[in-house]
Amino acid sequence: MIVALAGGVGGAKLAQGLAGILPPESLAVVANVGDDFEHLGLHVSPDLDTIAYTLAGIANPVTGWGVADETWSFMDALARLGGETWFRLGDRDLATHVERTRKLRSGASLTEAARAFLSAYGVKTPVLPASDDPIRTFVATDEGELAFQHYFVRRQCAPRLCGLEYRGALSARPSRLAGTPWTELKATAAIFCPSNPYLSIAPILAMPAARDWIARRRFPALAVSPIVDGRALKGPAAKIMRELGEEPSAVAVARWYRGMVDALAIDESDRGCADEIAALGVTPIVLDIVMRDAADRARLARQLLELPPLSGAWR
Amino acid sequence: MIVALAGGVGGAKLAQGLAGILPPESLAVVANVGDDFEHLGLHVSPDLDTIAYTLAGIANPVTGWGVADETWSFMDALARLGGETWFRLGDRDLATHVERTRKLRSGASLTEAARAFLSAYGVKTPVLPASDDPIRTFVATDEGELAFQHYFVRRQCAPRLCGLEYRGALSARPSRLAGTPWTELKATAAIFCPSNPYLSIAPILAMPAARDWIARRRFPALAVSPIVDGRALKGPAAKIMRELGEEPSAVAVARWYRGMVDALAIDESDRGCADEIAALGVTPIVLDIVMRDAADRARLARQLLELPPLSGAWR
Repeated sequence: MIVALAGGVGGAKLAQGLAGILPPESLAVVANVGDDFEHLGLHVSPDLDTIAYTLAGIANPVTGWGVADETWSFMDALARLGGETWFRLGDRDLATHVERTRKLRSGASLTEAARAFLSAYGVKTPVLPASDDPIRTFVATDEGELAFQHYFVRRQCAPRLCGLEYRGALSARPSRLAGTPWTELKATAAIFCPSNPYLSIAPILAMPAARDWIARRRFPALAVSPIVDGRALKGPAAKIMRELGEEPSAVAVARWYRGMVDALAIDESDRGCADEIAALGVTPIVLDIVMRDAADRARLARQLLELPPLSGAWR
Repeated sequence: MIVALAGGVGGAKLAQGLAGILPPESLAVVANVGDDFEHLGLHVSPDLDTIAYTLAGIANPVTGWGVADETWSFMDALARLGGETWFRLGDRDLATHVERTRKLRSGASLTEAARAFLSAYGVKTPVLPASDDPIRTFVATDEGELAFQHYFVRRQCAPRLCGLEYRGALSARPSRLAGTPWTELKATAAIFCPSNPYLSIAPILAMPAARDWIARRRFPALAVSPIVDGRALKGPAAKIMRELGEEPSAVAVARWYRGMVDALAIDESDRGCADEIAALGVTPIVLDIVMRDAADRARLARQLLELPPLSGAWR
């Protein structure tokens, strides 16, 4: 059983690659919930949905979030009513939020709601929210504290970030797969998908049980760098690194993951960083880690699963 | 100030006619809330919305309910998720329900939510839910008790009705217009729009304050028959009358309204019923009461407002 931790778009791509190779009983995808929020009275789980939509093959190929063939009548009508329109919910996407909110209010857990949706899509790979308990990312900025989506979407990451808090994480418990907390699954390896460490991975690891899980592991762990050639492939990872005093680079990613992973997959364009990463005690693995299309996702997943020192673990 | 009580489509049409003639300070439209229900976790107010959409000029001209130029992506996606699809909510219409539910959860009243929407549409005529307290119509049928929308939409009025209950009405209080309960407005006349008596008017009058209002009135009251030539123009009024042991006719409508109205506007095709209606102590007023288009709505409203014995009251 490989446990893959993922955030949004980049994580979803690699999760899809892995799900195309590994049988459902050999892979659990753990999704960040730090981005979740209540909006318009609805429970929105952006990363969980991006992963589910991607595995279901209905993700919007243009935006990276939301659903393909989307329509926007709801937002148009909401604007006319003077409602809040800074967070755009498409008409199809909205069905997920309305139905999930209904399920949660009826007593279902976020995990159960996600499982029902995946089942409806015919996706067999388990995708779990990191926790059914709320973990909410807040950012300290030069404009004061902002709830995550207010920073990320409403303010388009413009404020200068000086700190992060994963509220609720200390008392949050890992969600369960068939009754077992994901941190107690018989994992043979952990993969940190190419997601923003601060915004997608840290909220998961802020749970004490998840931190213990990775600290006490007896299985190999590998991360895929979200930084390629000093830039984030998507999102504000590079900007945030700079604001936190780090030069955005694969080395900085290795430093962040040091002690938590055995290896870091970095891009061929970052081959020059390999020695510096190795000096941190992290094995650099040079690959083409940019996933432009479905073939790239499958190829990268296969390359990771076949890594010589770890391949025994992967299977 | 004329107070017009209305249910759905027929009531909305006459309300639009009246609103086109009377200044906003001279008309209050009181909408049935017996059809309201919680669906998919959202507060749906079908009659209130039909009236608001009609006055706003955005009602769906084909269905009579919902919004023009509607799209259905939400329902498609919800069906894919295995959600409940028997009550169809269009993408544009959904904005109303989501935003209203959000407002209600934030502590706003149904009246306040309706006012905000009317204001956004530029509608100046006040449209009030009969009450901010829940009044919920339940029907006793040969298949057992059904909540209204389960009878009306899900079962398409197929079960044989043997009784009605307006749950909550006894403790419900009339909503307020500028601080005054609508039953205490300085009314100069009451108009019962051509709505289903059992399903649209009775839930309003089931409130003790509304019943007192009409019983103790010192202003004229007039109803417009929802039955024309023995048939309901829309909906199950005729079927329900039959099931309750009444022959559907303008006379049966007059019998229902006896003691509550001074006059009943009936269609020219029902001229033959005039004497029988007069014998009930209700003045029959023969008009073309079928509203096929906007011109008909304006014309009928004008004819009612100009009725000789009542015209002083209308102005």
